[in-house]
Amino acid sequence: MTSRSRVLLAECLGTTLLLIGVVGSGIMAARLSPDDVGLQLFQNAVATAAVLVAIIAIFGTISADFNPAVTIGAWLLGHRAGRDVAPLIVVQVIGAVAGTVLANLMFDLDAATWSTTSRSGGHLWLSEVVATVGLLLVVFALVRAGRTAHLPYVVGAYIGGAYFFTSSTSFANPAVTVGRTLSDTFAGIEPSCAPMFVVMQLVGVGVAVVLLRALFPTD
Amino acid sequence: MTSRSRVLLAECLGTTLLLIGVVGSGIMAARLSPDDVGLQLFQNAVATAAVLVAIIAIFGTISADFNPAVTIGAWLLGHRAGRDVAPLIVVQVIGAVAGTVLANLMFDLDAATWSTTSRSGGHLWLSEVVATVGLLLVVFALVRAGRTAHLPYVVGAYIGGAYFFTSSTSFANPAVTVGRTLSDTFAGIEPSCAPMFVVMQLVGVGVAVVLLRALFPTD
Amino acid sequence: MTSRSRVLLAECLGTTLLLIGVVGSGIMAARLSPDDVGLQLFQNAVATAAVLVAIIAIFGTISADFNPAVTIGAWLLGHRAGRDVAPLIVVQVIGAVAGTVLANLMFDLDAATWSTTSRSGGHLWLSEVVATVGLLLVVFALVRAGRTAHLPYVVGAYIGGAYFFTSSTSFANPAVTVGRTLSDTFAGIEPSCAPMFVVMQLVGVGVAVVLLRALFPTD
Amino acid sequence: MTSRSRVLLAECLGTTLLLIGVVGSGIMAARLSPDDVGLQLFQNAVATAAVLVAIIAIFGTISADFNPAVTIGAWLLGHRAGRDVAPLIVVQVIGAVAGTVLANLMFDLDAATWSTTSRSGGHLWLSEVVATVGLLLVVFALVRAGRTAHLPYVVGAYIGGAYFFTSSTSFANPAVTVGRTLSDTFAGIEPSCAPMFVVMQLVGVGVAVVLLRALFPTD
Repeated sequence: MTSRSRVLLAECLGTTLLLIGVVGSGIMAARLSPDDVGLQLFQNAVATAAVLVAIIAIFGTISADFNPAVTIGAWLLGHRAGRDVAPLIVVQVIGAVAGTVLANLMFDLDAATWSTTSRSGGHLWLSEVVATVGLLLVVFALVRAGRTAHLPYVVGAYIGGAYFFTSSTSFANPAVTVGRTLSDTFAGIEPSCAPMFVVMQLVGVGVAVVLLRALFPTD
Repeated sequence: MTSRSRVLLAECLGTTLLLIGVVGSGIMAARLSPDDVGLQLFQNAVATAAVLVAIIAIFGTISADFNPAVTIGAWLLGHRAGRDVAPLIVVQVIGAVAGTVLANLMFDLDAATWSTTSRSGGHLWLSEVVATVGLLLVVFALVRAGRTAHLPYVVGAYIGGAYFFTSSTSFANPAVTVGRTLSDTFAGIEPSCAPMFVVMQLVGVGVAVVLLRALFPTD
Repeated sequence: MTSRSRVLLAECLGTTLLLIGVVGSGIMAARLSPDDVGLQLFQNAVATAAVLVAIIAIFGTISADFNPAVTIGAWLLGHRAGRDVAPLIVVQVIGAVAGTVLANLMFDLDAATWSTTSRSGGHLWLSEVVATVGLLLVVFALVRAGRTAHLPYVVGAYIGGAYFFTSSTSFANPAVTVGRTLSDTFAGIEPSCAPMFVVMQLVGVGVAVVLLRALFPTD
Repeated sequence: MTSRSRVLLAECLGTTLLLIGVVGSGIMAARLSPDDVGLQLFQNAVATAAVLVAIIAIFGTISADFNPAVTIGAWLLGHRAGRDVAPLIVVQVIGAVAGTVLANLMFDLDAATWSTTSRSGGHLWLSEVVATVGLLLVVFALVRAGRTAHLPYVVGAYIGGAYFFTSSTSFANPAVTVGRTLSDTFAGIEPSCAPMFVVMQLVGVGVAVVLLRALFPTD
């Protein structure tokens, strides 16, 4: 297997595990704690943080974006070649769909069902911008400071916290957004609401790139 | 005491502590939060993650598999000699039984009672495959990348999360599965359900070994 | 951008993110778990710890006080020049206000509303002294021992815990105190109560500086 | 201030903060979540883990036992001189009492009130033995392997977990046991129950020393 194939496999498998974590823990939490939505989100947030720690630690020495927003940010900041962006996004989306399907199956649901959870409104879109800016600051501040060994813990902590401090519960990831359209459960998002989430995440990438260039110049 | 004896003692003691953590915290959670199963699992998951951090940190410089699936995976991947596998599994199972008995006694229960919790069904078996694949990816990705100092935290996070993102609550460990047949409490599993869990865990080992060889070639 | 401008930008942006975390997660927790104030504080504490891990990791290689008490302590202990103190406090307060406004907007509230949560009484003031002493011990013990790589995790853990072990829920930060006057939600504090909190935090700085000089002499 | 005075001050202050954490968070949890004892213990456990991370990180480069069981274990294992044991225990107990008093005052209670919480029975005593064995394994395995930088996180995780996997909620510390007699709140223990807890903790020290000598020989 070539080094390039390993990168694509790592990005696909990691995103699969990410969606298993996000969607699966959402289903479990909603089933077991039906009377307290805050407790559900708490369980979902901690499990998501935990799976992020795991997948970034597993694949970090190969490739561990699992997120088109991070991949595009890496390209704009000069950490990835432009020709790698499209293939990475393709395998991330494939992984996200595979992970959602596996989560549905592990909880004895149909392999895929369109979500009917509407997530729309200016305050949610603002949340996605803020969430994505924060995520990219975490990732590239550590990359540019040469402290990548901390990435699993810091990204996990950041996203776990961001589930609570944004009203959108911080999707902050276009591949995750696509995957979550395919499960009509706690973590789902109605397909018609997904495009605006992705647009706002890309706006967040733009803002983050400007801030990162100012804060962490490379020369 | 020979180096080999220390390895066997470490694996036995560590698995004892692991089952104390898993079974004991399950009993405590079910007693204290009887009205919310999600909160019970949350407490059980965090306590299990915590005990994993502790035991891998304690015994990691000696031997810290505590899991026949990990030991067999290590053998298939060339990190353990074949002649060591059987003795390690024996002491892991002894430790698991001892830990369950100690947990029962610490909570003023009979030393051992067969569990009556049925855990059976295709979605649970799929969960055990997925959970075990993820666990072996964590362990051997870090081993092969020479980053074993991170193992306590990453394994703890992974299993803590996996309690929520799999419908089986991620046993992912044949010795733990055997131990958990002996407590008729929150974490228990009916003995008749244990063999299929172990089979699925071994399937997970096979899948993980294929992925690990592709992702982390040794030459 | 000069190095000095980067410091001011980092302190402003980091404090913005801190207040987003504190105020935003408080709103989310109160909305989702309306019947259990302990669960609300638990969610708020964990999210605050998480955002502290993130912001100290992001900005730590530039400047990561986000807190006039820390900045003044750094000056008294000889880690910051006196002429830097005022500008840092100004940008921290600006960041705190901006973060509170963003949190309000992300949850579809007015940009700013004076809090009506009264927080007054000797036991709360004692709590603020203790909380601030502990925070400065954490920060400057690690700084003086040259172990700053641990700061994100230890500060996050400390403040997350201190939300529970002080009756004031550990503001421990004058800029945060000002910011929290501007949201009439879970994390708010009535403006008339803020000055005594700040005074007590400054008393804490004094106590901490005496202890730190005794415990960690520089020569 | 002499190096020896700094050690005594560190042990006293650290134990003060430990009891503030244990007792204070217990009061907060019981007040805010009166209807769910499991949730109370969860909050208490996480806050205790957090304060352990903080105090071991703060004082670790000076002296960070905060526990006569650890100090006696260190002496038996050859890591402390015998003449240091008594003074350390004295300041640890003073710190524990001071911390409990401060916690009571911070929550607007009388400075000290004898606890009326009976904690007695063979299963609780077995729990204290097991809890103390585990704690000493954590501490001295890391010390003997030269990995003391991990102590804050691993000790925090271990005790946080042990609150749930032992029926006694893991006091595991004679100074903490004494301190907790002085608050008639969630974390309290009736004075008449304290001696047997201390005896069992000392039994745990004995067991742990035997295991540690076998597992981690010094030559």
